[in-house]
Amino acid sequence: MRIGFIGLGIMGTHMVRHLIRAGHQVMVWNRTASKATALEAEGVVVARSPRTLGTMVEVVITCVTDTSDVEEVLFGAQGVAECGTNGLVVVDMSTISAGATRTMAARFKERGIDMLDAPVSGGELGAKNASLSIMVGGKREVLERVRPILAVLGKSIVYVGEHGAGQTVKACNQILCAVTLVGVCEAIALARRAGVDPQKMLEVTRQGAGGSWTLDHLGPKILAGDLSPAFMVMLMQKDLGLVVELADEVDATIPGTMLAQSLMAQLVSMGLERFGTQALVKAFEE
Amino acid sequence: MRIGFIGLGIMGTHMVRHLIRAGHQVMVWNRTASKATALEAEGVVVARSPRTLGTMVEVVITCVTDTSDVEEVLFGAQGVAECGTNGLVVVDMSTISAGATRTMAARFKERGIDMLDAPVSGGELGAKNASLSIMVGGKREVLERVRPILAVLGKSIVYVGEHGAGQTVKACNQILCAVTLVGVCEAIALARRAGVDPQKMLEVTRQGAGGSWTLDHLGPKILAGDLSPAFMVMLMQKDLGLVVELADEVDATIPGTMLAQSLMAQLVSMGLERFGTQALVKAFEE
Repeated sequence: MRIGFIGLGIMGTHMVRHLIRAGHQVMVWNRTASKATALEAEGVVVARSPRTLGTMVEVVITCVTDTSDVEEVLFGAQGVAECGTNGLVVVDMSTISAGATRTMAARFKERGIDMLDAPVSGGELGAKNASLSIMVGGKREVLERVRPILAVLGKSIVYVGEHGAGQTVKACNQILCAVTLVGVCEAIALARRAGVDPQKMLEVTRQGAGGSWTLDHLGPKILAGDLSPAFMVMLMQKDLGLVVELADEVDATIPGTMLAQSLMAQLVSMGLERFGTQALVKAFEE
Repeated sequence: MRIGFIGLGIMGTHMVRHLIRAGHQVMVWNRTASKATALEAEGVVVARSPRTLGTMVEVVITCVTDTSDVEEVLFGAQGVAECGTNGLVVVDMSTISAGATRTMAARFKERGIDMLDAPVSGGELGAKNASLSIMVGGKREVLERVRPILAVLGKSIVYVGEHGAGQTVKACNQILCAVTLVGVCEAIALARRAGVDPQKMLEVTRQGAGGSWTLDHLGPKILAGDLSPAFMVMLMQKDLGLVVELADEVDATIPGTMLAQSLMAQLVSMGLERFGTQALVKAFEE
C-alpha cells in the first residue's frame, strides 16, 4: 500500500523502517526536514507538506508529540485535511486528547476521510521490535482495512471502542505505568536506606505479587544508575496532563496519578526532563 | 524432621498440610485451639503451649498476624523461649516489625536459639500451591539448615541479609503491591467513567508496559465484582503500618504508600476490612 507517515521521532523512525521492509511504499513528512531526508536513502519519498502527502497515499499515519501537533499537521494551512481525497484513512498513533480526537474525527467525516486513534504502548523498544501494543478507537471496519499495516508495527492490536476510546485506554495505560513506577522507586529507595541489597529485593519481589513490567524492565536500570530514556520524563509529564484533563471531564478521582504527576514535575524542576521515567527514583533520594 | 508450627490461619493451615505430605512430623499450637484439633485427623500432634512445642521439635515456624502475636508466642509466659532447648531454630514467617525481629533474634541468641525472619509473598494461593516467595533474613548457614523445609512451602527462597532484612524486603514487597493496586483501581475506575469497556482496557494494557501481577490477578476479579479475600484489607492495612514505621526509622519518603494507606483506611471505615485488597476500587467509585 501507499502509506504516508508524519512524525519521525524515536518511535516513528523505527516504524517507517518496518513499513518499508514489509514492502509498503512510504512517503514521509517531518517538521524537522533533515530527519526525513535522512531516510531517503532507505527508499522513502519526502513530501513537501502534509497536504501533498495526503494526495499521494491511501493511509496517513501520524506519530507526533501533542494534541496541537496533530491538529497542525491534519488541519493546518498545509494540513492533510486540505488534500481533498475521499476514502483516505488517517491513523493517529500519537498520545493526545480523547476529546480533540473525537472533534477531528467528526471534521474528517464531513470530508469523506476516516480517522482512527491508535496510540501505542511499549516505548522505543516496542517500536524497534515491532512489539507495540496498539489500542484502537474509531469504526471497527476501518480498523479491519488497516489492520495489516498495524500488524507490521505491533504484536497486539485491540479494538477498544468509538473515536477517542483508544486515547482513553492509553490514558489508563499511562496511569498504570506512572503509578506502578512510584511504587518501584519507593521500594528501591526504602531498601537502600534500610541497608538491604536492592538487587536481592528485586530478585525475590519480582517473582511474587509485587511483580510488574516496570519492576522487571526499569528496576534493573535504576539499580545500575542507567537513566537513559526509553520513555522521557517530559513525555510522561505531557501524558499525565492528558490523564488529568480526561479525569476532570468525566469526574474521576486519580490521587495516585496526581502524585506521580507532581513527582514528575519535581524531576523537570531538577532538569531531568530528557531522562527516562526511571529517573523518578531521584525524587526519593533527596 | 520434627517441626513445630504456630499459627493456623488461612496460610498456616495450607503450609502445615504441605509439611505433613513431605513426611515431616508436625506438632502445632494455635491461639484458637479448635483450629489445631481440626488438624489432628491429618496426623499432627497438638501441643499444650508454645513452650511445650519448643521442647519437642527441632524447628519452630511461626505464622501469626502481628508483632505482638509473635512476641507473645515466642517470649510470653508459656512462650517458645522458655523451652530451654539449645540448637532450636525459630523461623518467623509472619509479617512484622524489622526492628522487633532484630531484638528477638538477639534475645534468642543468648539462649542458644537461632532465629530467621522469613516472611512470604503470594497470599493464600501461594500457600496452597506451595509457590510462595520467601525472603529470608538472619544467618546464612541457619537458612541452609532449614532450606529443605522452606522448599516444601515455596518456590523461591532468597537470602536477603542479616536479621530483619527479610522483613525489610517484605515491606518493599507490600509497597509494590499496594501502590500498583492504586494504579490498577484508578485505571479501571477511569475506563468505566469514561465509558470504555474496562475488559478491553485490561486486555491491551496487560500486554504492555502497564502490566503487573496485580493487573493480571486482581484486575479480572475487580471487573467481575469479586471482592473475596485472597489477602484481606485489614492485613494490608497492618502491613502498611509496618512500612510507615520502617520508613520513619530510616527517614525514607513514601508518598505512594501513604496514599495507599489512607485509601485502605477509607475502606476500613466503609466496613470492608475483611474483603480482599481489590476492594480498593470502591474508594474510586464514590
